[in-house]
Parts: sequence; structure tokens; C-alpha cells
Amino acid sequence: MSQPLAGNLLVAQSGGPTAVINSSIAGVISEAGRHECIEEIYGGMNGVYGILQENLIDIGEENTKSIQALKHTPAAALGTCRYKINFKLNPEQAEKDMNRLFEVIEAHNIRYFFYAGGNDSQDTTNKVHLEAAKRGYDIRAIGVPKTIDNDLPHTDHTPGYGSVIKYNATTVMEVGADLRSQATDEGSCCIIEVMGRAAGWIAAGTVLAKEQEDDPPHIILLPEIPFNETKFLVKAMDTVTKNGYCIVVVGEGLKDTEGNEIGADKTKLDAFGHPVLAGAAERLAEIVEPALNLKTRTVKLGYAQRAAAHYASQTDVDEAFACGEAAVRAAIEGQSGFMVKLVRESDEPYKWTTGLQPLEDIANQEALIPREWISEDGWLPNEKFEKYARPLIQGELHLPTRGGLPAFARLNKVAVEKVLPPLEP
Amino acid sequence: MSQPLAGNLLVAQSGGPTAVINSSIAGVISEAGRHECIEEIYGGMNGVYGILQENLIDIGEENTKSIQALKHTPAAALGTCRYKINFKLNPEQAEKDMNRLFEVIEAHNIRYFFYAGGNDSQDTTNKVHLEAAKRGYDIRAIGVPKTIDNDLPHTDHTPGYGSVIKYNATTVMEVGADLRSQATDEGSCCIIEVMGRAAGWIAAGTVLAKEQEDDPPHIILLPEIPFNETKFLVKAMDTVTKNGYCIVVVGEGLKDTEGNEIGADKTKLDAFGHPVLAGAAERLAEIVEPALNLKTRTVKLGYAQRAAAHYASQTDVDEAFACGEAAVRAAIEGQSGFMVKLVRESDEPYKWTTGLQPLEDIANQEALIPREWISEDGWLPNEKFEKYARPLIQGELHLPTRGGLPAFARLNKVAVEKVLPPLEP
Repeated sequence: MSQPLAGNLLVAQSGGPTAVINSSIAGVISEAGRHECIEEIYGGMNGVYGILQENLIDIGEENTKSIQALKHTPAAALGTCRYKINFKLNPEQAEKDMNRLFEVIEAHNIRYFFYAGGNDSQDTTNKVHLEAAKRGYDIRAIGVPKTIDNDLPHTDHTPGYGSVIKYNATTVMEVGADLRSQATDEGSCCIIEVMGRAAGWIAAGTVLAKEQEDDPPHIILLPEIPFNETKFLVKAMDTVTKNGYCIVVVGEGLKDTEGNEIGADKTKLDAFGHPVLAGAAERLAEIVEPALNLKTRTVKLGYAQRAAAHYASQTDVDEAFACGEAAVRAAIEGQSGFMVKLVRESDEPYKWTTGLQPLEDIANQEALIPREWISEDGWLPNEKFEKYARPLIQGELHLPTRGGLPAFARLNKVAVEKVLPPLEP
Repeated sequence: MSQPLAGNLLVAQSGGPTAVINSSIAGVISEAGRHECIEEIYGGMNGVYGILQENLIDIGEENTKSIQALKHTPAAALGTCRYKINFKLNPEQAEKDMNRLFEVIEAHNIRYFFYAGGNDSQDTTNKVHLEAAKRGYDIRAIGVPKTIDNDLPHTDHTPGYGSVIKYNATTVMEVGADLRSQATDEGSCCIIEVMGRAAGWIAAGTVLAKEQEDDPPHIILLPEIPFNETKFLVKAMDTVTKNGYCIVVVGEGLKDTEGNEIGADKTKLDAFGHPVLAGAAERLAEIVEPALNLKTRTVKLGYAQRAAAHYASQTDVDEAFACGEAAVRAAIEGQSGFMVKLVRESDEPYKWTTGLQPLEDIANQEALIPREWISEDGWLPNEKFEKYARPLIQGELHLPTRGGLPAFARLNKVAVEKVLPPLEP
């Protein structure tokens, strides 16, 4: 173990928010409080984007109650961004950014840097780590995993994933009950669109709603399996004949056999001349309704699914928190250039721990669902997937309320005094 | 008090399901069990539609556990329908239906008839009541109110409404947190479409998400206020300039100044030649994105909102249950031809009781939001509305789970033996 490194801590968030990313931040803050070598705890507002503008807040000015409440507060309480320091696309700007970033880091004596995010964010963390080594500046940079998409390699799963599939599977059960209760002779269909980009993890997770064979979802259209319209229509009609209704879940990134996204309507251009993304569910409804003469409705949960803290998985909240704690412990032990990962020790009973993975192994890789976790006919994930996913949705929160609604954290956000000249535009 | 009337009970559901309509059925069953004059308790499957086919189930064959679980199970556990005995549109069929209905009622010695539903369902209950009087058949027909739309007259509110606005307001808070955390310089907009048909009650209910002035929702487009595109765009831009983002809630039935539904896209016809209902949110996004050059996303909760038992209001569950109980008590006391209504006794503390309203007062009337409950500029409901709505979302459920997901009731549905010839097609 190396010598304790004295200095300040900077934690920030990046990429699409989740229901539990703030729990990771709470974990970082909680663990940091146990180590005297960590002097001040700062939050970087809106990730790298705000840090470049020296927009830091002093976490020491927050009530401990608010930090506790972060465990149950959705979205990125410190703000997030999609800004990337991109040496490939714009090396000149990237070098400028990196210089500025280290000006901020040095000006505030940041010695501990934690960045919670997905693929791109881990890449940024790695760049900070490498640049510090080059400059001979002693800093411990550790990535905290986060993404509802569950597409990061090397970690068993990502914090955020368990909660999104718990909420989405519940929605499928509820919408399924609704349609089943309306099922008279005419038959009906409901298409539920979920997130996940090119990966089908989120769509696949809704299979957990199935208790019995006839239960919804009846068809899950995974982006991993190219969409075949004819086969899909036959399968949907079969389902309606059998059950009186059909619930279809579609991953937003579903592609046809030629690799085109189903949701992209190329006949329709927006004001900027780009094809309008009608959405996969709307597109499928346009196919199903006339072809099968079937009342067809759509549900598009959109941002609601990744922010649904009110029905988050307690397991997910705990794991996200533990990832934050583990990041700080690793840094205190002298590590830098790693991402915390979740390691599964057993399925039943479900046991897990955290580990470390070099950041260079994470960037620009995408983990998809293994083909052997999907039924042969491609319509549903199989029992191997269920064994993997079921433990991740366990445990209900005790969510405090205010006025009958969830009591989410409100941070004071006391700004750290700026000491640098403003960022040049 | 009249003599106890001995015979069987028939309870059924009709119209669009809600998160708590089964709680009303549980209330009917629970109260019925206390009265010895009620011999058998039958459930009519899929409302009048199934009753005409003599599709009845024997509730006595259900586990008491399942009946308890109905309080937390969304949608219509007995099935529902949109079938209406319509003397105006088709008097011949209606008379045939009414004869058949009374064949079924008499064949099974039904003396207590409870029908949970909205406007049309109350009309059906009234017809049963009037027809029985005409025939000299002694039956007690009582309507149980139900509709997420909250558009029934004479009742303070309808069971189902509190739960849908609790869930929708929570969704607005969560989606709002998500957008706020992404708010950097570019600005963004999210349009959330909710149900409610021509009434704005559901859309209005999302105002409860607002704790502070800048909180979402920033704009609520109520069908009661004709949509003015230019004013809307100015208001949305103002909001983005001030907050960095804008959350718009739109009632599905929003109309322009000429009374046309915003969601109807008349330039696009479906396979049957009807204009495609693109949805109000999608339509608004098409307006906002190019006009304000603003990243705009949509959320369409669809059926998910009316079936969201996992975050139902305990107050709503209790009131729905009490309406079922009150219906049976009224019938036992000799009443017929009434709908149970909810009567508010005070706002703070919130106190309520049940009452009875003649069914003839309910049918074909629609209650809209009073203009004085909406801000002068029309963008948001005001404090009068909030005072009305806030009590309805209070109380969190203790929802049992199975495998990490809500444990909803599964009825055995043991069919009552048919004694009549099948319904002629």
C-alpha cells in the first residue's frame, strides 16, 4: 500500500442519467468521509463540460440528509453532459481541453478523481489518468460504472440496469393485465418501446414479467436479432388467436435484415433534412394494424424508464452505492486507471462483490446479449438470461415521500470559488 | 328498511380499466359476505358482453387471499368490455339484448347487480334498474363509479383518478430530474402525453409534481383551453431560456381553436381511410423541434398510466374499496337505481364519505375542470385545483412481490354452469 496522498476529491457524472447513478455518488461521498487524507469533496457540475468552466460545488456544504436522499434520487444530481475530449475528431480542441482540465485540477489540488458513466466516460477517466502520468501530476482517477444499457464489457452488469428492467417488467405486467381484461372477440395488440440502443438487454429484461407461458410479453424484438416482418406478423397473429391479445416489447435500436433501424422513416425529413425517427413502436403499429386488422396501441416510456427511482431495485441501489465506495477505497490504496466492476460470485443465492478492470479494456467496446441466451426462434430470451437477470431486480425501496410524491434530494449547490480566468470560448 | 331480499349477487366491470377498479370489486365481495340474504356471489366476465353469453364465474371458488390481492391488482380482473345496450342506435338489438340479459338474471336468480364503470356503464345499470321495474322483477341495481378520467358528475372525484395522477406526477418529477441534469447550453424539451379524453383532469393532476416555481411541469396543455401554437412556442422558449429545459404535459384530447384534435394528422390516412392519430405529443414535438431548434423528446405512457398499480394511491385504493362496500349496503337497505358517489367533507384534514346519486343524473354528462381552477394565462391549474387534488394521491401501498415484481391476483375463474341455450349470433 502506498503512502496516503493528501488533497481534494472531485466527483462528477456523465452520459445518460439513471435511477441509481446518484447512489454511486453517495457511495463516493460516504467512503471519502472515512479518510482524513481527503480534504475537500467537490462535485463537478455537468461532468467535464462544467469542470472545464471551473463549475465546482462544495459537497461539504450539503446536509447529510441530502446525501442520504441521493440514494433514492433519479438522474444526475450533479448534472451530466455528453461532452467528450476527442483526440481523434478534433486533436487541437482536445489538447486545449486537456490543458484546461489540468489547470482546474491543479488549481483546486484535486488528487482524487471519480467519474461515473458509460463507455465514453470511462474513456475520459482513462485520458485523465494517462495525462496525469505524462505530466507527473499525482492523481488517482477511477471510473464508476453506470448505464441502463448494460453494454459495458468486463462487469457482470452495470448499475442502473436492474432498476430499468424492474420498472419496465412491471409496466409490461400492468399493461398486460389491462389488455387481457379487454380481450373480447376482436383481439388487440400493444407495442411497448424500450431503450437500450443497439443492445437488447433492456428489452430482454421484460421477460421477467412472465410467470406463466401465456403471460406477456409474448414477443420481444431484440436488436441482436434482425427483424423479419412476415415472421413477426405470423407470430403476432398466432398469439392473438391463442390469447385474445398480444404484448410486443421492442428495443429502440431494432434493425431489419439490411441493418437499417426500423424506427427511421426515410420518407419523412425534419427541418434539418434528417430522416425523422418515428420510433420503433409507432412504425410497428403501422405495420400490425392494417396487416392484421387489429386494434393496436403503443407505449413509449422514453426517459421515464431510466429515471424511475420510485420503483428502483434495492439490489441495484446497493450495488451502485458499493461501486462508489469501492472506487474511493481503490484510490486510497494507490490505484489509478481502473473502472470498478461488479463480479458475480453465485446465482443462487445471489452473491456479488466489486473488482477493478483497467480502463483501457472498457473504452469503445459494446457487450451484446449472447446468442445462446435467446430462444432458438429468436422471440424471447431463455432461462439462461432469466437466471442472470432475476437477481438484479430484487428488493423494494423504502422511498420517503413529501405531499404524496417521492421526496427527492435537493442539493444546496454552493459554488467553489473560481480562481482561474474564464474559459476561452 | 325493507325486508331482506334473498338471492344471488352478480358483479361486473365495464369500460377502460384502472389501477383500483378491482379494489371496488373486492369491496363488493367483502361486504356481500356479511349478509346472509346474499346466497351466491357471481362475477360476470367482460361486463354485459359476457353476461349476455352467460359467462359467469363463481367467486365462492376463489381463495380469500386472491380477493385480498385484488385490492392491489390493476385492470379488470373479471374482464371488461365497451359493449353498450343502445336503444337509440339499434333499438331492435337493444331489446333483444335486454330480454337475454333478464333471461340470464332470472335463470341465476340474480337479485343484486353491481356494475363498476364510467358514464356508459352507469347508463347500463340504470337500464337494468328500469327494465326490472317494468317487468316487476325484484332486483337491486347499483352503480359503482370508476374512471381515471374523473369526468363523472355529482361525485367529488372518481376512484382511479388519484392513482393515475400520483403515477403521472411522479413520472413528471422523474423525467424532469432527468432533463434538468442534462441541461447545458443547448436546451431541451420533453413532451409527456397523458390520457383523459376531452377532460383535462389527468393532465392537470401532474401540477402536483411542482414543489418550487421552476419545477416541472412548466406547461400543461389542457383540452379545456384551445391550443394557440404561437403563444405556446413563446412560452416554451421563455421556459428554456430561464431553466435550460422545458417539460410540457399534454392531454391527449387537446384541441385547436377550431375544435380539431391536435393529434389527428389529416394528411395521413390509415388502411381504412381514417386520419392517423399521430398522438398529441408527437405532433407537438414536430412543431417545437424545428421552430425552436430544440432537442425534443416525447413520452407516451398510454395504458401504463391507468394500470400502474405498483404506485397507486392508498387513498384511492381505500375509496374504491369503500364504494364497493357502500353499493352492497345500499342494496341491502333496499335501494336500486343509484350510483355510489364520493362526498368530500373537508379538505384539511381530508375527510370523505360515500353517498348515493340517482343513476339518471349521471348518464351522458361530462364534468370538465372549472375555468376558475386554471391560471388566468391558461398554462397551469391553480391553487384551487391543487387543494382539490393533493389529498387524492396520499398514502403509499404495501405491495407484496413475487420474484422481485408485484404479486398480482390470479383468479381461478371457475365457471358457473350454463343453463340457457347459447346466445344467438
